[in-house]
Amino acid sequence: MGKSITYKILEEHLVEGELKEGEEIGIKVDQTLTQDSTGTMVYLQLEAMGIDSIKTDLSVAYIDHNTLQAGFENADDHEFIKSVAAKYGIIFSKSGNGICHQLHLENFGKPGGTLLGSDSHTPTNGGLGMLAIGAGGLDVAVAMASGKYWLKVPKVVNINLKGKLNPWVSAKDIILYILKKLSVKGGVGKIIEYSGDGLKYLSVTDRATITNMGAELGATTSVFPSDEETYRYLKSQGREEDWMELKADDDAKYDEVIDIDLSEITPQVAKPHSPDNVESVENIKDLKIDQVAIGSCTNSSYTDLMKVASILKGKKVHPDVSLCISPGSSRILKMLADNGALAHMIEAGARILECSCGPCIGMGQAPKTDGISVRTFNRNFYGRSGTKSAKVYLVSPETAAASAIKGYLTNPRNLGDDVKINVPEKFDLNDNLFIYPPKDRDKVEVKMGPNIKPFPLNSKLKDTIEGKILLKVDDNITTDHIMPSNAKLLPYRSNIPYLSKFCFSTVDSDFWKRCEKNNGGFIIGGENYGQGSSREHAALVPLYLGIKAVIAKSFARIHKANLINAGILPLEFIDNNDYELVDFEDELQIDNLCQLLVEGKNITVLNKTKGKTFKVRFVGSKRDIDILIKGGYLNYVKSRLGG
Amino acid sequence: MGKSITYKILEEHLVEGELKEGEEIGIKVDQTLTQDSTGTMVYLQLEAMGIDSIKTDLSVAYIDHNTLQAGFENADDHEFIKSVAAKYGIIFSKSGNGICHQLHLENFGKPGGTLLGSDSHTPTNGGLGMLAIGAGGLDVAVAMASGKYWLKVPKVVNINLKGKLNPWVSAKDIILYILKKLSVKGGVGKIIEYSGDGLKYLSVTDRATITNMGAELGATTSVFPSDEETYRYLKSQGREEDWMELKADDDAKYDEVIDIDLSEITPQVAKPHSPDNVESVENIKDLKIDQVAIGSCTNSSYTDLMKVASILKGKKVHPDVSLCISPGSSRILKMLADNGALAHMIEAGARILECSCGPCIGMGQAPKTDGISVRTFNRNFYGRSGTKSAKVYLVSPETAAASAIKGYLTNPRNLGDDVKINVPEKFDLNDNLFIYPPKDRDKVEVKMGPNIKPFPLNSKLKDTIEGKILLKVDDNITTDHIMPSNAKLLPYRSNIPYLSKFCFSTVDSDFWKRCEKNNGGFIIGGENYGQGSSREHAALVPLYLGIKAVIAKSFARIHKANLINAGILPLEFIDNNDYELVDFEDELQIDNLCQLLVEGKNITVLNKTKGKTFKVRFVGSKRDIDILIKGGYLNYVKSRLGG
Repeated sequence: MGKSITYKILEEHLVEGELKEGEEIGIKVDQTLTQDSTGTMVYLQLEAMGIDSIKTDLSVAYIDHNTLQAGFENADDHEFIKSVAAKYGIIFSKSGNGICHQLHLENFGKPGGTLLGSDSHTPTNGGLGMLAIGAGGLDVAVAMASGKYWLKVPKVVNINLKGKLNPWVSAKDIILYILKKLSVKGGVGKIIEYSGDGLKYLSVTDRATITNMGAELGATTSVFPSDEETYRYLKSQGREEDWMELKADDDAKYDEVIDIDLSEITPQVAKPHSPDNVESVENIKDLKIDQVAIGSCTNSSYTDLMKVASILKGKKVHPDVSLCISPGSSRILKMLADNGALAHMIEAGARILECSCGPCIGMGQAPKTDGISVRTFNRNFYGRSGTKSAKVYLVSPETAAASAIKGYLTNPRNLGDDVKINVPEKFDLNDNLFIYPPKDRDKVEVKMGPNIKPFPLNSKLKDTIEGKILLKVDDNITTDHIMPSNAKLLPYRSNIPYLSKFCFSTVDSDFWKRCEKNNGGFIIGGENYGQGSSREHAALVPLYLGIKAVIAKSFARIHKANLINAGILPLEFIDNNDYELVDFEDELQIDNLCQLLVEGKNITVLNKTKGKTFKVRFVGSKRDIDILIKGGYLNYVKSRLGG
Repeated sequence: MGKSITYKILEEHLVEGELKEGEEIGIKVDQTLTQDSTGTMVYLQLEAMGIDSIKTDLSVAYIDHNTLQAGFENADDHEFIKSVAAKYGIIFSKSGNGICHQLHLENFGKPGGTLLGSDSHTPTNGGLGMLAIGAGGLDVAVAMASGKYWLKVPKVVNINLKGKLNPWVSAKDIILYILKKLSVKGGVGKIIEYSGDGLKYLSVTDRATITNMGAELGATTSVFPSDEETYRYLKSQGREEDWMELKADDDAKYDEVIDIDLSEITPQVAKPHSPDNVESVENIKDLKIDQVAIGSCTNSSYTDLMKVASILKGKKVHPDVSLCISPGSSRILKMLADNGALAHMIEAGARILECSCGPCIGMGQAPKTDGISVRTFNRNFYGRSGTKSAKVYLVSPETAAASAIKGYLTNPRNLGDDVKINVPEKFDLNDNLFIYPPKDRDKVEVKMGPNIKPFPLNSKLKDTIEGKILLKVDDNITTDHIMPSNAKLLPYRSNIPYLSKFCFSTVDSDFWKRCEKNNGGFIIGGENYGQGSSREHAALVPLYLGIKAVIAKSFARIHKANLINAGILPLEFIDNNDYELVDFEDELQIDNLCQLLVEGKNITVLNKTKGKTFKVRFVGSKRDIDILIKGGYLNYVKSRLGG
């Protein structure tokens, strides 16, 4: 049986495990990318691993999220990332250069390679035949330090594109159509591989629009073949030597095959508040709009923006509409300025924003109360625009531009003849906003502004642990209880010492002081401890405060994994009635801990205050136990890199 | 004796009083402008005056301050201003169109006319021979409603510009040089009038740079003659019919004459933290910089930005520098895009921000901790950049661009031959971002988002007032005590009901509840009540809470004026010992109030709780008493407009 593109790439990169659906494997990571919102923590973790140099072929640190810079924190983060990049051999992309995925596509993505990124839309580079996966920051830090990433082999689904798109229908409409068909859960645990005759009508940036929003399907990633069009694109970026042909074998094995007839697709729109709440634009009548926003990693390519400029040329943005455009890269912006397209946009009344993520991640351009906003972005979740009562509709650049002129959600077919864009054979190549690592990297000093504090590293697990119960809580404690996240605390994500003062603050505002005074201790929890968001900080902050173990009736899955990664023991009562027998400020002691963990035995806890003992257990894999004994995931990786 | 430009314009516009230095006069206001930061309150006040139509020849509402739009409040403010503009016949300038002063210069300013603006840099339009004055929001609202403005006739100072500028020296260097000479207090109570042979080397936008920063001299305004250069500028904007010649008589009378030899001026820099802390750029060695910001109402003209583009062409922004450029208007941005200049900027690595005030008013681009920022703006006050530890240096566009390339504060003379800019005879005229008032204005509905509440109007003063003492405070109460202003409360400046819950919150958090429960009452104060900032809200919020009078030992001047404008009686103890005889929650009553005020007699206050009386007095002008009796300044204006 033949191989899919996915299996070809995985096989080529396999370093651990068996390449079989559902098995955990380790793969070589060729490239990583980070953006600045997740990046500061990633590089604090990298720093904590004590390596000299990254192990990937290429890693890039992009600045594209926090580019408004309302306070010193953002600029300090950028400076920190820039200095770490120089120290470890990472390419740094300055603020204003553009959006990470668009820039990576232009400058670095390679067919057949692997890319791990600390951003959920990393699959964008699947558009040129790369296996590009979004992951948590810690995984990306570990990938840079070790060159590896571990994942369960997903199912592989083939989407076969047949036929040809009608005029005014474009890649965005295809992926919205697929989202309607498969839903936001349709891709979970799957890699989606595109094929078919329809490919020949899709440019690399069209394909990237489709793989980009594979993230909204919940897919691990999406990937296109690397073909003549891929060659043409890479050549236009001066990188034809990075091309290789890559396609699935004719008899490739897939877990599922889905046929899509491109000719059936009309201009689509995802209505509030989900990217899969899709219907035909023509079905929505008389929707008066307040704002149109064009850009984001989904739709900010040269072709996308040239289409927009062609539609706006000689026209006027409707007086009731605010149209903003954020180009994907400074390279694209420069070309639009050079060829007159930008002048058409400005003349029509568009607001030209910086080349960055901008309004797509809620950085500015919050609509008015109850505002209707039409956007070429990838997500229209409730509140994401910055205005809770706003309603966001996701569309193609063509639909967005047509709507901006008319003042109503408008089917671009009403504009007459389709626009044709001639993509230049050669782009203006310019890398003035990239900073490449210096030769004498050992001389680089890492610059940490006052709001950036080192990542808290745990130490090797002791065989005996003891301390007071510093907090006893009820069932269903959420990560919001453990570590509140709000606008006030968000700028302090790189400052664990500061955040620690708000740990459990909604439950007990003195908790952090008690931890400090007692040099850490224990937390007692009820059922489902740590439910809610996946935020790592809900484990990192207790680690900083010296929490040694949480003993609970049961744990929420992701928080438990985060506790293990932080080196905090998540222990479960064998008899839940024992919960009643331990009280706030009781002194606990556990002996012979490491051996009991390794042997998978029940663990006896001595309540010294009450003079009684009770039993708990640790439920987890051998690898989890290894991580706990080493003092958390970073120490675990450090020890493996050392060995 | 001949007349100055100032006296010629004032004479032409005089409607009340005698044109004599130090006398209060009323003048006809031809035009007004507002920006969105002050504008929402201005238009709430205009709404409260109940007029049908503005009385000025032309009024424009610009959106240029809060263009980042981090929450719905900004977009709601913009929508509100847009709807009020349509209702009253005001031209609305959409977000993204550009900076109010630059746009007004291009589109509306007229030699010989008067302009009142709710922004301190309104004098910018003095560059084309207009008497353009910055004023408080209420004055601008009254000017729109009545067509008039009242001011004390300032002294008139003549600055005579002789000689010719050296290469690489420009208008910004002239005004920085003057600031060094005169200091930030040098213009207080004065209008500065420019003349001399040197004028012929200064374009209208150069002149506007100089009048713009007259605000930093503390001057009432600054004004240039209207000459052939003014004609050329107006013609380039398609407005030659707005031109008239205007110059001072040869024997014009001035209070002071200052000669400046242009040939003596070198590139100048204002060091932290004051615009008059000026020295020659060449004297500052080895100042490594982190950021360069080009734009603002001071330096964002076509010529300014073309110079920057010429310097950046084929060069690269230093890797350690973030260079951002915010053009003054979409017209300029379009022309830069069209002629290739913008492409040069982008290629060099500049970040192109929206056409708006941007970083100049702390909207984004806050430097990093301890960051050194070189800016073409007008103010480098401590903390204004958004980063308290940052140091801001003010320079010309030439010095800024040279510094961006070199990474150090750089004298542009080091770049070689001076750049020459050919200004087009005709600008690209385009007004797609202006919205002109509709014909059927009576059908316009004013749109107030949930954060915008009507302006609190007082009612006619009653002859008998009574109520409880709801608060008794000590000496030196500041407006920060009365109405705290911080980042948390700033978005609520158009929401007096919400703000009222924080009135006196640092002193007594229940104050507002007591006011509500008792339907208002009295405040007892000590010496110097209401010292501190000039914020009107410290009077508007007590008005909303029903405060009828503040009885104090003495008042701070501006707060007392604000109380009168709000229709709250500022009464002073005749015998300060009586302060000790009134207590919190005593019931007070004043009879025969209006007559006593008009007759200028002492006023008897009955303390019903104590069964005693004491005497107070009102100290103020006949006009103040009129305002109090009518129930505040807005009601006073309303009554005069009605009559």
